[in-house]
Amino acid sequence: MAARKSPPRRTSSPTRKRSVGHALIGQSGGPTVVINQSLVGIVEAAVGAAHIDKVFGARHGVKGILADDLVRLDTQGKAVLEKVAGTPAAALGSVRKKPTREECLAMFETFRKRDIRFVFYIGGNDSAETANILLETSRSVGHELRVIHVPKTIDNDLRVTDHCPGYGSAAKFVAQAFLGDDLDNRSLPGIKIDIVMGRHAGFLTAASVLGRRHADDGPHLVYVPEVAFDEQRFLDDVADVYARRGRCLVAVSEGVHDASGVTLAERIATSAEHDAHGNVQLSGSGALGDWLAARVKQALPGTRVRADTFGYLQRSFAGCVSERDAKEARMVGRDAVRYSRTHESGTVVLERAPGKSYRCRTALAPLDQVARFTKSMPRAFVNKRGNDITQAFVTYATPLAGKLHPVGRLKGI
Amino acid sequence: MAARKSPPRRTSSPTRKRSVGHALIGQSGGPTVVINQSLVGIVEAAVGAAHIDKVFGARHGVKGILADDLVRLDTQGKAVLEKVAGTPAAALGSVRKKPTREECLAMFETFRKRDIRFVFYIGGNDSAETANILLETSRSVGHELRVIHVPKTIDNDLRVTDHCPGYGSAAKFVAQAFLGDDLDNRSLPGIKIDIVMGRHAGFLTAASVLGRRHADDGPHLVYVPEVAFDEQRFLDDVADVYARRGRCLVAVSEGVHDASGVTLAERIATSAEHDAHGNVQLSGSGALGDWLAARVKQALPGTRVRADTFGYLQRSFAGCVSERDAKEARMVGRDAVRYSRTHESGTVVLERAPGKSYRCRTALAPLDQVARFTKSMPRAFVNKRGNDITQAFVTYATPLAGKLHPVGRLKGI
Repeated sequence: MAARKSPPRRTSSPTRKRSVGHALIGQSGGPTVVINQSLVGIVEAAVGAAHIDKVFGARHGVKGILADDLVRLDTQGKAVLEKVAGTPAAALGSVRKKPTREECLAMFETFRKRDIRFVFYIGGNDSAETANILLETSRSVGHELRVIHVPKTIDNDLRVTDHCPGYGSAAKFVAQAFLGDDLDNRSLPGIKIDIVMGRHAGFLTAASVLGRRHADDGPHLVYVPEVAFDEQRFLDDVADVYARRGRCLVAVSEGVHDASGVTLAERIATSAEHDAHGNVQLSGSGALGDWLAARVKQALPGTRVRADTFGYLQRSFAGCVSERDAKEARMVGRDAVRYSRTHESGTVVLERAPGKSYRCRTALAPLDQVARFTKSMPRAFVNKRGNDITQAFVTYATPLAGKLHPVGRLKGI
Repeated sequence: MAARKSPPRRTSSPTRKRSVGHALIGQSGGPTVVINQSLVGIVEAAVGAAHIDKVFGARHGVKGILADDLVRLDTQGKAVLEKVAGTPAAALGSVRKKPTREECLAMFETFRKRDIRFVFYIGGNDSAETANILLETSRSVGHELRVIHVPKTIDNDLRVTDHCPGYGSAAKFVAQAFLGDDLDNRSLPGIKIDIVMGRHAGFLTAASVLGRRHADDGPHLVYVPEVAFDEQRFLDDVADVYARRGRCLVAVSEGVHDASGVTLAERIATSAEHDAHGNVQLSGSGALGDWLAARVKQALPGTRVRADTFGYLQRSFAGCVSERDAKEARMVGRDAVRYSRTHESGTVVLERAPGKSYRCRTALAPLDQVARFTKSMPRAFVNKRGNDITQAFVTYATPLAGKLHPVGRLKGI
């Protein structure tokens, strides 16, 4: 583990507040339902921190910094902050933007004008890269700046950290969606394919199995990007399960790809360019699920086949939150402020203590260890045949998703 | 209101249990998350009822009756039943089947063999029709049978009743999905189209507005089957909202159709038959959303447009239940047993008391008033232009969906 150990907590409060500079927070990338927990964690810790005076929020991340479009966060009051913490998606607004060299320089005009000395940037690996660029620019322009990256992603694909804030709640959503859809499929048997988010990593798709309790519970097949997707094998698997069980529930990651690395979604989009409508979407679209359903219908004529694509609900549905995820997202924000007192830069990571009972604490890792790269699932989380998820994953992910909606079945069924 | 008034409740328990016959319960049609509440309501009332002895459940509705595939329900025990009550989808298994004359006669072999004198059939308007057919057959074959239809549907399209068990929870799911998706769309602005279930009635799509609190909250446009869908008008509406707000969240019912009654989904499927893949699905498919998104992209090139189709999550997601819906579904089941003591047949309906505070009780209506037909939303629930939902609907549906996940926003944003 390359993460630096966390510094000891302060044992006493400073006698008076000594301002060193103002802080700025930005949110970036796809939202999660707990990204505002981290935002509020930063604000509440910064308000109590000796080295930070005012706290600004940039609207829509780097776009807000560029336009000097900021709001005061340290004056929001506890009640507002607590409500915002429980609100899905980015309260400040988000952005998908990697700043150019010129934009980086322009951002420092805002930092200078506002005397901003601390930047907390909440986001995924792209955001860690933005944070790193800001840090390098601060050195070259001679404006002292501390930059802490605060992780979030439903994909759970950041390196170094045991897991990412945002993942647990999305995993809970996916687990409960499959829990319900498996009961639905049991009620009205057929073949059902559900497409789950995750371009490069199968963590979220794997969460589909967390609600399984009985041997016949679905999903019966799970396909993740960690294993090359073979269409014929997929069709054979589905036919086999359907023949044995009279029904089949399948979880497929939107990022499944063939052995050469071309995603199935890309392949479909390419062929779909020739149809009458064009403009087929890759994400925010049902194309992959519909295509797989059509393939299964061709292979098993007369069978009831349906596909659903869970889409943005996975990252923003209001009312499905893992309590642990919410708490950790808050902790990561708070600790980011603590690290900013002693470190020039870094990304806050979560370290899980070994042993059976779940315990987790934060540490600080170098920005460049998280920037740009993504992490896949360990191969041990996928079965040998590459069409199911192992107990090792269940052990890993169960504490993150937390308790699922309790279900029961009648005796004799 | 054609519903018969409910008989007075029994004021004392009978001194001893007098068996008249056994009861059978079936579940039919698309599941809901509270359909098992009704099942358990029937079982617990039947166990305590003087006129009913054993209680059987038919696996997969009429299919189970035909095959004599039954399970005992009165011996399940309280703990099992309570767990099952909170479980989504049909615990007995469901079916989409309208029995033929021959099958009806065959079912009476099971009824005779098992001495079944009471049938409780939980389902939508098709199930009410099945119940009616069973009743008529019982008269023609001379096997005395009482048949009570217990309503369920997420579409809320049954006649006579104020609303349907199952609708409130599905409405809560849709409301919370839009609540989160609106915050998502606010975070990363663009045009987002969400397809909601409901072939003939817009009740569920209309529930998309229940989370709106501020003037700029989405959905900004809502299209339901009660108003003819005009593609150009839709595109103009979207362009207008996008120009004014820089973003646009749209709710579209899967059942929207043109002035001649042809649904958009059918039209797309017809044209899609000519593409390379064929087999385009109408339900359990993302085709309608993708098609609308492609149209908007053509009209507004360069705009970020996404579509999600909520699919089966709306009817089976585990962990999103309206408490009132759950209670009413249980009550409807219990009262069905009560009515079976005094009435030969009927469908249990919900009557809402006039006045500001919500109160609801059951009544019994004739089967044929509910069978076959569906109910649309009153025109007063849709605005004049036909692209939004009125306060009259919000007043109607808010007590049914119940409390939504609380959200807040930062001051100054």
